[in-house]
Parts: sequence; structure tokens; C-alpha cells
Amino acid sequence: MPSQTALELLQGHFRPFAHLNSAVSLLSWDQETYMPAGGGQARAEQIATLQGLAHERLTAPETEELLGQWMDLNTGQPLRNSAGELDDVTLALLRETWRDYHKAVQLPNDFVCRLAHTCSLAQQVWAEAKTRNDFASFLPHLKQIVDLKKEEVTYRGAATHPYDALLDLYEPGVTTASLTALFGALKAKLVPLLNRILESPVRPSEEILKRGYERERQLELGRAILTAMGYDFGCGRLDVSAHPFTTSFHSTDVRLTTRVSEEDFTGSLFSCIHEGGHGLYDQGLPAAYYGTSLGEAVSLGIHESQSRLWENCVGLSRPFWQHFYPLLRRTFPAQMQDVSLDALYTALNRVFPSFIRVDADELTYNLHILLRFEIERDLMEDRVRVEELPALWRDKMQAYLGIVPPTDREGLLQDVHWSIGAIGYFPTYTLGNLYAAQFFDQAKREMPDLIEHIAAGDLIPLKQWLNDKIHRWGRLHTADELVRRVTGEPLTLAHFMSYVEDKYAEIYHLEKETA
Amino acid sequence: MPSQTALELLQGHFRPFAHLNSAVSLLSWDQETYMPAGGGQARAEQIATLQGLAHERLTAPETEELLGQWMDLNTGQPLRNSAGELDDVTLALLRETWRDYHKAVQLPNDFVCRLAHTCSLAQQVWAEAKTRNDFASFLPHLKQIVDLKKEEVTYRGAATHPYDALLDLYEPGVTTASLTALFGALKAKLVPLLNRILESPVRPSEEILKRGYERERQLELGRAILTAMGYDFGCGRLDVSAHPFTTSFHSTDVRLTTRVSEEDFTGSLFSCIHEGGHGLYDQGLPAAYYGTSLGEAVSLGIHESQSRLWENCVGLSRPFWQHFYPLLRRTFPAQMQDVSLDALYTALNRVFPSFIRVDADELTYNLHILLRFEIERDLMEDRVRVEELPALWRDKMQAYLGIVPPTDREGLLQDVHWSIGAIGYFPTYTLGNLYAAQFFDQAKREMPDLIEHIAAGDLIPLKQWLNDKIHRWGRLHTADELVRRVTGEPLTLAHFMSYVEDKYAEIYHLEKETA
Repeated sequence: MPSQTALELLQGHFRPFAHLNSAVSLLSWDQETYMPAGGGQARAEQIATLQGLAHERLTAPETEELLGQWMDLNTGQPLRNSAGELDDVTLALLRETWRDYHKAVQLPNDFVCRLAHTCSLAQQVWAEAKTRNDFASFLPHLKQIVDLKKEEVTYRGAATHPYDALLDLYEPGVTTASLTALFGALKAKLVPLLNRILESPVRPSEEILKRGYERERQLELGRAILTAMGYDFGCGRLDVSAHPFTTSFHSTDVRLTTRVSEEDFTGSLFSCIHEGGHGLYDQGLPAAYYGTSLGEAVSLGIHESQSRLWENCVGLSRPFWQHFYPLLRRTFPAQMQDVSLDALYTALNRVFPSFIRVDADELTYNLHILLRFEIERDLMEDRVRVEELPALWRDKMQAYLGIVPPTDREGLLQDVHWSIGAIGYFPTYTLGNLYAAQFFDQAKREMPDLIEHIAAGDLIPLKQWLNDKIHRWGRLHTADELVRRVTGEPLTLAHFMSYVEDKYAEIYHLEKETA
Repeated sequence: MPSQTALELLQGHFRPFAHLNSAVSLLSWDQETYMPAGGGQARAEQIATLQGLAHERLTAPETEELLGQWMDLNTGQPLRNSAGELDDVTLALLRETWRDYHKAVQLPNDFVCRLAHTCSLAQQVWAEAKTRNDFASFLPHLKQIVDLKKEEVTYRGAATHPYDALLDLYEPGVTTASLTALFGALKAKLVPLLNRILESPVRPSEEILKRGYERERQLELGRAILTAMGYDFGCGRLDVSAHPFTTSFHSTDVRLTTRVSEEDFTGSLFSCIHEGGHGLYDQGLPAAYYGTSLGEAVSLGIHESQSRLWENCVGLSRPFWQHFYPLLRRTFPAQMQDVSLDALYTALNRVFPSFIRVDADELTYNLHILLRFEIERDLMEDRVRVEELPALWRDKMQAYLGIVPPTDREGLLQDVHWSIGAIGYFPTYTLGNLYAAQFFDQAKREMPDLIEHIAAGDLIPLKQWLNDKIHRWGRLHTADELVRRVTGEPLTLAHFMSYVEDKYAEIYHLEKETA
């Protein structure tokens, strides 16, 4: 069977590449969790070397020779004379392998090493700069990174907009133009909704969420809810880091981190649920395709849809808390004794403009993303300089959310992304919110008793539906194909908008808008 | 300057090799500390791949080309025409680089991968077999490993004895014949001393060490004593694993592990001090030579001398406890309230035949090593088969220590070494004991107030002396050269024997033997 041969050959060739990438992921995970402070310089060099070796392997003559048997290496199109023999899996395997190969050969080896080394150091400077609220110390590193990303665009080629080449790394198929249209339409609907909420006389209590919560008990609660979600601790862990993340070295070793504040339990709890959604995706990826591009997640937007679906559509829903509120109360009896289920639900879902993206509610969150999207787009277009970012950040916060962060720590130093060179990444968060609402609507349609299951604390049917519809396919379908296959339509704003409109109409006693 | 050029060239060439080795060390550290159980299979493959890549790099044509500029690659001798230009550092660099290169090219790449993969799996089977006291499940893996080590000897060549080729991997310069002589002489002195102790009416209390000790407080105590030793936690960590070990990814990231039993605090405490001695060595290695063979430790015996010197000569001494007993008492006030300093000191130093090597006292410990040395030697000589080991183990325990382990868990399943292919490693433990006593005698000679410092809790002068005399030299001198340079004589039994004779004569009220 020719398709098996292609899979086996590609798997054999790319397994060492996957192993190098897994080692890099462990070196990075360790850097964020357990590495002593003094180890940073040597670690940066180790990561840069291994990334360089992985890049070398991906772009080696053997890769070209292997792929060249089936496809035109310049276009990624299957060769006419063998196209008839290839089944869908093989075609997808070749398409996705070529995509990764092509992205890699666009970049000189030396550039990959420089970028990795610069980012590994910049990330450590950023962490320190954030602590000391010192943008000036991070500025030269951020300038270096922006310059390197512009250099990257020259290698990758930019047909329409230089930012397109970076967006495509995280969300294949998305363009600056398509996002400008989609996010523009979203903004046109979100801003009026936000204003109606801010005018509502309903004022959920924030105090009931900020009564002091012991660190270890927060982690226990997170572990209990992750277990209920079906996250397999035999093939995973939960640790603590400054910025929560999920990393995977194989579907049998998928690790989550959370951040813990003793003041407020919601940060850690919803980070656990959020990262748990990512973790379920990685644990559910097809092990049979491990080592090849097919064994990976479709896109960051689809990955984010899994975390957002669990965090928001499930974790912030009333049925979820109908079951889990007693557990929360047992975990923190003193703090919860005078808190009703209804008061908890409204407090968790309160909407208010705030400085920190990761603490933002489901609605204003997307305005944080719009701001970053516009800044990144303008940086890549040379319409703004890095030195201007603190002022620009404050202007945009004022314009979209009506508030101005008092310090850069609460402004453009808050996120790790730019320090690791991840420009083009932020938009996938809002795409994830939109995908999540659309997938969750479909799950409810296919499982009419889904909400009853959730209200009974039985989260496994949803986990299995996601395993079946999304996780097990790896990169067999593109994001656009996947969302059409699962929901019968392309990505649309409608599901997300009706989700937030219905939810907040109920909580904030809003009158139905006339459409 | 030609020597600088050689160092720079070799450093540039070997840095990626060092980075791959550092990544393997992290993958292994993680496997022993934080990896979820399900991740074992994928981890074994990742480690095997990275070890294979490191081996490829070490044995690449570029290595030959580079080394060939200065030396005959078959013999390791400097080329006559350039010998005059090379200084001592360069000569040592070439000698040690060739040693590593030569050891590596002796093995086919495929063999290195097979060995790594077999051992990574065998280690996991061993851990399970030890838990379930099930030698039968480990047997086929151990047979595979012994066969692979015999295969390894055929590649390495064995001039006199097949075991020599393995011994030389861990303790360069040592042979089966030299160890048989040295260990024979040691046995002739230790066994009579042990018998005199066993006949003594003195019976130190064991109960005062086994009163239950909270895990976290044990780790705090370990961290406090490591800090006093000068171990730098800014460039290191202490974690918990089944078998304590030290690993290093660079002198700025050196990690220790300990094992913790809540019954008895001494296991964890002395593991901390022991691994701390290793850690000080690794933190003290010459960073200027990082990436080359010169930047590494001389031998396992010298490495072990550092851990044993701290664990035994310092940690089990009366002056040490004169200072640290109050800290122990503050840490465990209830358990220690009726324990005098003298009772503690004698209890810590009690001598008694026991099953578990790592729990053995300083004296019987060496009989555990002799037993393993003889078994390994006989396995490599084909004088014994793996199936016979459980019975042979029991026979030798009876003959040397007068006791027989009731299960294999307390017999030949107790140590991790064979499961990771480390045959030839055990003898370095006793060599470490002998080196340690000799180094410590020299330190006392050069610092007449050393014991007063220790009794005042000031351990830094000793740490600095070791940094200066041993650590900072890396592999510039061979083990034999180093011990002669530091102490003015070759390795001898005399220092160790007078150390144990004096110590136990005092504790057990023995009469002085006539020589």
C-alpha cells in the first residue's frame, strides 16, 4: 500500500526531528518551572543549539529527496504521475509535511539560531523588567525581536501584507485583511454590548472572590476539576509558573502549569480549566502519527478553542457550578459560607474594563486582543516604532476600554509573547473564542442531554465528543475544513455573539436589542 | 598563541555535543523526578535519539580532521613536528579529547542506540521489579544488558581482562588486577576490624534515629546544611527521587536529589551531604573549559571522594555535630529532647552488617562494594550467569557480612546501576572512600585550624580548599597525577585505615592492635 509506505518513510525520517523538538520543549518547560536562576545563560545556548539541529534535520537534503518523490518542492503540489495512487491521509501528510518543510527552508540556519538565542535571553530580561516595571531594560531586546521578525518576513515573502507571513505561522489560512474584517465586525457588536452592560444597575460582588485562599488547596481543587474533565494525570502533570502554559513531549506526557495568587482563587482555577482544555487536545492527538506533522494540532486558534470551550462555555456556566459549587465550598468553607450559588455565578461572570488580559472577562478580553492585533499589524507595517508602544498602548486602552494602565507592568509588559518572538500569535485567542462558541453549540445540538450531564458533574461525554470530532484528527484537515466538517458551516461571529448576548442579558437584566 | 587556537577550535566544535549531553541529562533528571508514569516509552526514544546524535557528532569526520592536526588518531600521541609548540593545557586538552573520541569511535552508532534504548526501558522495569520484589521480570533485561556490555568489550578491546575495558570508562587507569590487589589488602584489614567491633560490648542506640520525621522539615534541614557547605542554590536545586543523584547541565545548573523516609531522618540528611559534595565539585569545575573534555570531572572515584569526604570525614565527625546538633534539635525538638550529642554521634557511627549498600556504615560499605566488584568481574569473565546471581548474592553476603537478605529487593535488586548499564561503576565508590581519607588528611595538614572551623560550623575554608586543589582543574590532570599533586603520594590504604581504626577504637573502646 503506497500510503503506508509514505507514512512509514516520513515517520522514520522525522522521528529524530520530533525527539529534538520534545527535548527543546522540556528544556523550555524546565526553564519556566524548576531551573535555578543562574542556569539561564547556558540554557539559552542549549535551546538554540537543539533548535538549530532540528532545523538542520528538517531542511536536510534527505528531506528534499524523500518529499521530492511525491511532490513539487516549490509548490507543494503532488506530482501528476503519482497523484492517483495517494489516499486522503497520504495527501494530508504530504501537504502538512511540505508546509513545515517549506516554512523551515525559508529561513537560513544562522537566522534560526540568532532568533532562538535572542528570544531565550529576552524572555529572562522581560521577566525581570516586568517585576521591576522597567520597560527601558526590555526595550532594546524587543527592538531586536521586532527587527528579527521583519527580517523573517523578508525570507518568508509577503504577498499582500508583511504581517500575513507571521499570522500564517500560527493560524494557517488567516490574513491581515480577513482578520481586519472579522475583528472589525466583532468590535461593532461588542462595544455597544459592553456599554449596555456598564449602564446596567446590576453590580456583582467582587469581594466574595478575594478572601484569601491557601495555595495548596487551590492546586488540589484544580487537580480535582482536571480529573473530572478527563485529563489523565498518568500522562501529565500540573505545576506552577509565572504565566500558565501547556506543553507536550508526546501524547503520553502532556504538562500543564498554572499561576497561583493567594488573594483570588479564580486565577489559578480558570487557568487549570483553560490549560486542561489544551491538555485534553494534546493527550487526544493521534499517537499513530507521532513524529509527523499529521500528529499535531491543527492551529493555535483551534487549540485555543479547546481551552476556551472548557474555561468559558463550561467553567463559567451555571450548570457547571450547580455540580461543583459544593466542592468549592468544601475546599474553602470559611470563605464560602455566606456565598450563594447565584452570587458566585454572577461574580465569576462580571464584566468590567481591566488592565490585564488574562484576568479579563469573556467580553472585554477580545478588546485586549484587538489592541494587540492592531499594534502588531502597525509594527510590521512600520507605522509605529517600538519606543512609541507605551504611549500607544495607553491611548488604545483609553479608546477601547476607557481606562489607562498606571504602569507598563500593567500595560505592554504584561504578556510573555513578544519576548519569545511570538508576533502574530495574539489574534488566535479571539479566533479561539469564536470557534469555541461554534463547537459548543454543535455539541449541544448533537447531545441534547449535554447540559444535564454537565450539571451532574459528568464532563466525560463532552471530552469524548471533542476527542472524536477534533482531537483524533491531528492535522488531517485544515482549520477551515475542520470547522465546516464539525459544524456544517465556516467560522462565523453568530454563535459567539448569541452566547455572550444571552448570558449577559440574563445576568445584567438587559432588554433584548432589536436587531 | 597556538594553545588558545586549539582550545577555541575544539570548544567551538564540541559545544553542540555538550548541549546535546546537557539535554540528555535533563531528560534523565526529569525521568527520575517529575515525569508522569505514562511518559516512559516516549522518553526512552527521545534519550536514545539524542545520545545517538551526540555520538554522531563526537565521531564525525570533522572531529577527526580537527584532532588530526595535532595528533596521531590511532594512538593519541601528539605529532612530532608540532609537539614543541604545545603547552600543558593544550596537551591535556588533546589527551582528554582524544580519550573521549577514541572511546566513542570504538562503538558503532547502532550499538550506542541499542544500548541507550535497552537501558532506558530496563531502568523502568527495574524500578517496578524492585517494588514488587520480582527479579524474574528484570532478569531478561539484565541478561540483555550483560550481553550488550560483553559486546561493548569486543569493540573496545581487552588486553588483559574483559572487565578492564569497562573499569576504564569510570576510573581511567584502573585495572582488574590493580583492584584485585588493592581490594584484597583492604579486605584483609577490614574483616578483622569488623570482627573486633562486633565483639565490643558497646551497643549504640539505633532507636533514637528512628522516631518519625516530617518530610518537609527533613528537606529544610538538608537545604540548611547544603547552604553551610557553600552549595549555591542560585545555580542548583534539591529534589526528591527514588535513588539520590547529582546531575549537571553546566556549572551554573547543578542539581541534587535525595530520598526521604519519614521513619529515619539520616537517609535523607546524609544523601543531601553526599550529593552536596558531588554538587560542589560540579559547581566548581572550570567554566572556561565548558564544552570540552577538560571542563569535566577527572573520574568517578575522584567525584566520589568529594561526596564521601563531606558525608563521612565531615558529616559523620564529632566536630561537625558540635555545631549542627542544635539545628537538628530545633528542627525535631520532640524527637531529640532526650538525645545527647554523644548518643547522637555514636548512633550515627554505629557499625553493623546490613543488606542495603546505601544505608551501610563506612566500614561494611566497602564489603558491599567488594561483593559487587567480584560479581561483575566474574560475569564479564563468563564464570557466572545472570540466572545464578540471586543465589551468588546470598552466598557472598553470608561469607562477607554474615547475613543473608530475605528477598531480592534487599539483595541484587537494590541498586539502579546495572539497569542503566553501569557495570564497572561500583568499585569507584570504595576508591572514593580511600581518596577522601587521603585528601582530608592533607587538608588538615595544610589548615591546622580546619577542625576548629568545622566545629564552629564554618565549612567554607574546606570548600575553598577543595575548589582550589581539585575542582578548578577539571581533567587537566589524571586521577593518579591529581592525588600525587595534592597529597604528595599515590593512592594508599593507610589514610583510610587509620581514619576508621581511630574512629571506631574511640567509639567501640577497642584496644590498639599491635601492627
